[in-house]
Amino acid sequence: MAVNLKPPAPAGLRPVPGVRLGVAEAGIRKTGRNDLTVIELAPGSQVAGVFTQNRFCAAPVTVCREHLAIGNIRALVINTGIANAGTGEQGLKDARATCEALAKILSVSSSQILPFSTGVILEPLPMNRLLAGLPHAYAHLRDDGWFDAAHAIMTTDTIAKAVSEQVMVGGKTITVTGMSKGAGMIRPNMATMLGFVACDAAISPSLLPTLARDAADASFNSITVDGDTSTNDSFIVIATGQAGNVEITDADSHDYRELARAITAVAIRLAQSIVRDGEGATKFMSIVVDGGANREECRKVAYAVAHSPLVKTAFFASDPNLGRILAAIGYAGIDTLDVGRLRVWLGNPDEKTLVAERGGRAAGYDEETGARIMKNAELTIQVDLARGPASANVWTCDFSYDYVKINADYRS
Amino acid sequence: MAVNLKPPAPAGLRPVPGVRLGVAEAGIRKTGRNDLTVIELAPGSQVAGVFTQNRFCAAPVTVCREHLAIGNIRALVINTGIANAGTGEQGLKDARATCEALAKILSVSSSQILPFSTGVILEPLPMNRLLAGLPHAYAHLRDDGWFDAAHAIMTTDTIAKAVSEQVMVGGKTITVTGMSKGAGMIRPNMATMLGFVACDAAISPSLLPTLARDAADASFNSITVDGDTSTNDSFIVIATGQAGNVEITDADSHDYRELARAITAVAIRLAQSIVRDGEGATKFMSIVVDGGANREECRKVAYAVAHSPLVKTAFFASDPNLGRILAAIGYAGIDTLDVGRLRVWLGNPDEKTLVAERGGRAAGYDEETGARIMKNAELTIQVDLARGPASANVWTCDFSYDYVKINADYRS
Repeated sequence: MAVNLKPPAPAGLRPVPGVRLGVAEAGIRKTGRNDLTVIELAPGSQVAGVFTQNRFCAAPVTVCREHLAIGNIRALVINTGIANAGTGEQGLKDARATCEALAKILSVSSSQILPFSTGVILEPLPMNRLLAGLPHAYAHLRDDGWFDAAHAIMTTDTIAKAVSEQVMVGGKTITVTGMSKGAGMIRPNMATMLGFVACDAAISPSLLPTLARDAADASFNSITVDGDTSTNDSFIVIATGQAGNVEITDADSHDYRELARAITAVAIRLAQSIVRDGEGATKFMSIVVDGGANREECRKVAYAVAHSPLVKTAFFASDPNLGRILAAIGYAGIDTLDVGRLRVWLGNPDEKTLVAERGGRAAGYDEETGARIMKNAELTIQVDLARGPASANVWTCDFSYDYVKINADYRS
Repeated sequence: MAVNLKPPAPAGLRPVPGVRLGVAEAGIRKTGRNDLTVIELAPGSQVAGVFTQNRFCAAPVTVCREHLAIGNIRALVINTGIANAGTGEQGLKDARATCEALAKILSVSSSQILPFSTGVILEPLPMNRLLAGLPHAYAHLRDDGWFDAAHAIMTTDTIAKAVSEQVMVGGKTITVTGMSKGAGMIRPNMATMLGFVACDAAISPSLLPTLARDAADASFNSITVDGDTSTNDSFIVIATGQAGNVEITDADSHDYRELARAITAVAIRLAQSIVRDGEGATKFMSIVVDGGANREECRKVAYAVAHSPLVKTAFFASDPNLGRILAAIGYAGIDTLDVGRLRVWLGNPDEKTLVAERGGRAAGYDEETGARIMKNAELTIQVDLARGPASANVWTCDFSYDYVKINADYRS
């Protein structure tokens, strides 16, 4: 059951000039669903990617990195069902063969294709079925294919995730549309499971990677469901250059900031959607840590709280067992932390209460207020470390029976 | 439901000359159970302690550290129900007042008392009831009080944990008896929730702290249930010196090694008992990592596997979804890890199979073998990093519906 997350409306997903999407039912792992997606990009499109830091990275991630280094990308191909990770040399061969087959259909070079896979690890791709699905996906390429594609990349997601926004840049209307998938094995280190954001702005090839990294840091790199960094995390930003704006070449320009703001806003909504649809989630929790000596220690504290199974199960129970939050802050690894100075608040969109100060329970705190706040599905844990000016925030969800059920049953 | 863990037999717990234990029903948090324990030590006993590294350490931990620095400890007092953590200045006052009250009864100085608390964080101790219980516990001090004491220190434990062993040191029989408690918030960083091991050997005061630290590293510092380092972890080693052996003064002596072996063996059994009784546990898992460049990186990998909710839920389901193990190894933080060289085995006491090699599934692996091995409640995940001579092991349990149930209901 997703937390305050509605399915995208097909009409709300604006086509991005220069981008066409097509899906197919290839039968990768299950039947009766679309599981293969092709995204075709107009010539001249710029593409930047941010990928998992997991050492056991999937074969398609390795191939994406190689192909992005060569550049001039013309298409993306995404399968769900099998992750093509932990598949050794054969996995690399399969990812390359997928690129070659699609390149032949599109009459481009295989290095102009980016491959993506998501699903079960340690199992080989059913290459015959995958390759047989490519012509069908190609034949169905459409400007307005975002809605179907957002569904075709899902695994344990219960709701498709896609968002559109428009922004004025240099007197031209720029359309930004993106989609993502992921519900478990979510603790992105550089990017999420799979996230794709496209716009039709013209931007210098040297600036897009910076924009992609900054957008990833503010969005997918600030969420966690279960602390498990996936083998396949990939976040892709596409700029087709079809909007007619003067090419953005300066990272300090107003145009750059406006475009970066819009792309980051879309990325944050997609990243939060993954948490809202986190496996078994019943609460959406924002962990806000202020007053740190630096951002890194704020993130350490936020992740310690966000990953604590005891905190997450207490939130599932709507139980203001806030000592568990203090314990997590205490073991976050800040050796010089003065617990006598830090303060902790609990809040929801309607109210907020000081929970802890001076190393213990706040004098004005009462459990009735805590219990009332906890009943809301949107909760904020705010921590002031009282050590400096830095801050960070992490979005996560609670830990429920259904998380165990989903992950104990996932392959069956 | 504890995994292959039987309750201790009262007759199997040998008294340690110089140690008497008494319990009382003080009504700290719940009625109808013993929740207050006093352990009296004969004059001349040596005591060493290892404590939590959580910055939010509990008030009794702070007081224990102070009193151990002064030395000449004569008694321990342990309450369950309330952790006296996150209680600020009042918590420190309460811990000191507890020591003063017991010191008065025993006619010793309050610095000769070590206080311990375990239970809910962020709530104050009910001092009137605690102090009223002390005379009763004192009046019931007995040589053979280990069995009752092991029950009186429990919180969410389903089975009491206590172990005895004997060893010959310098021609004298030394008795080693210990007890521990803990089932959740278990990821000791220097020691477990509460562990006490007493022996009647004579050993130099300068050697006992080293022995205690080494025993903790080999036992309580190698277990995890949920990755949550507690605020109250304490591991105490007592040597009463009543066995009549020549005092051990050399860490390289045969006598020291024999005593250290026996104390470490008791500590390991107590630590493993905590995992076997881990909240909701249905499997006991040993994570063995060999071939590391150093012990620290082996421990990183072992803990990454042991803490992964995806690995733990797959083991709960007896599902050999082994790609999740590879993903956890990959994000353990070894930047130079060559996933093409490492190997992973899955085993139980009856058989063992190679699961992964050369970056993918091992050629000889089949799922039927994996599924058969997984049905056992005692499982080993063995990883060879192929980088060097170091190794480490961590014991943990799986992640079940009951973990969520226990922690969502704990306070109600």
